[in-house]
This record gives sequence, C-alpha cells and structure tokens, in this order.
Amino acid sequence: MGSSYVLVIADVSSRPEDAEEFGQALEALAGACRDEPGCLSYNVFRSTDRPERFVSIEKYADSAAFTAHRESAHFREIGLGRVMPLAVDRDVQMYTSGAPIPPAPNPRRAE
Amino acid sequence: MGSSYVLVIADVSSRPEDAEEFGQALEALAGACRDEPGCLSYNVFRSTDRPERFVSIEKYADSAAFTAHRESAHFREIGLGRVMPLAVDRDVQMYTSGAPIPPAPNPRRAE
Repeated sequence: MGSSYVLVIADVSSRPEDAEEFGQALEALAGACRDEPGCLSYNVFRSTDRPERFVSIEKYADSAAFTAHRESAHFREIGLGRVMPLAVDRDVQMYTSGAPIPPAPNPRRAE
Repeated sequence: MGSSYVLVIADVSSRPEDAEEFGQALEALAGACRDEPGCLSYNVFRSTDRPERFVSIEKYADSAAFTAHRESAHFREIGLGRVMPLAVDRDVQMYTSGAPIPPAPNPRRAE
C-alpha cells in the first residue's frame, strides 16, 4: 500500500485468564471500526507465544479519520468499556505511511 | 517506546493447508532474528479471523541494522528457504519511529 495513510499499532495484553474475553472484545471493536468512513483497514492478530497478547493493526485515511475513530461511540463503548478494563499492558503507536520493501531475490521462486 | 528505531511490519499469508508449517517457520525466523545485535524486538502474531495470515512486527535500531538482518545467513536460510516458498501473499512495510498515543480518559479505570 503506497498511498498516504496513518498506521496505528495497538499492542495490548490482558491477564492470561481474561485472554478469550479480551480477544472477543478486540474483535468486536475491529468490526465496528471497519465501518468508519476513514478507516482503511483494521485487523486483530494474536501473539503466537503469549496468547493474552494481541495487536490491532489499523490504517486510517488521515489524522482526522483517527481523531473521528477515537471520538466514536463504538470506541467509547467497546474500546473504553470492554477492552481497556481488561488491558494490563498497552502500547499504542502511530506511524505515517510506510515504504514498501520488495522481496529479496529467492532462488526457489521466480519473482 | 519513544526512542528512534525502524519498524518493519511483514504481513504474510500461506495457503490454509500450509498455515501450521508457515507459522512454525515464522517462529523459527523470529527466534534467530532476536539474536541480531541491531534487532530491538521481533514478534509474530496470527490473524484472529484468517489462521493462515501472520504479521511479524520487527524493530531495528536503525536502517543499517535492518540491512544486516536482510543479509544474515538465518534470513537467507529460514526467511528465503522456509517462509517465502510457502507465502502466497506478502506485504512488508517499513516505518520510522512512532508517536505514542496516550490512553483515552477511562471512566472505569483510574489512569
């Protein structure tokens, strides 16, 4: 994706005993956020070695779209109401548009 | 994390029938990369709605550290030798240091 966007990486963890409920709340938030007009993509991923750790990888058209996201009713209700109360670790970072990295030459595949 | 670093997000998918082997190869690559002197962190996450989709979230001290990563023997052997042959979708993007986003006010938690 080479065009301009804002990337948000939300790296969040719950207590191990809350991991399933935490993941369900993150999925519910993702579903609501995907309907925001300024949300380009919103996907939830789960750590392969710490099941209580998840990252949401969120792309917004611009910073105004991210502001609208944070001010939305679903962010308040699901994000603040269901996700945050279960979060014990939280690291959310914003990045501006990335630079694509092409595949390295691969002797086993024709690129 | 407020200090300077290079973030790499590798969003990769295999065929569904290769997902377990693909995830194991990504984990093996992560383990080797964490030992690179210039690798600040390297974590693998799996999509919660498409089990054959994984993201590696990689932080490097600087672009030279990322170059060293791409030129390493373990990247060639595991990344090119085991991961790439199973990858059917690949989107790798590089970002420079992020801006931390503080928690929104949360009526249900004392921040």
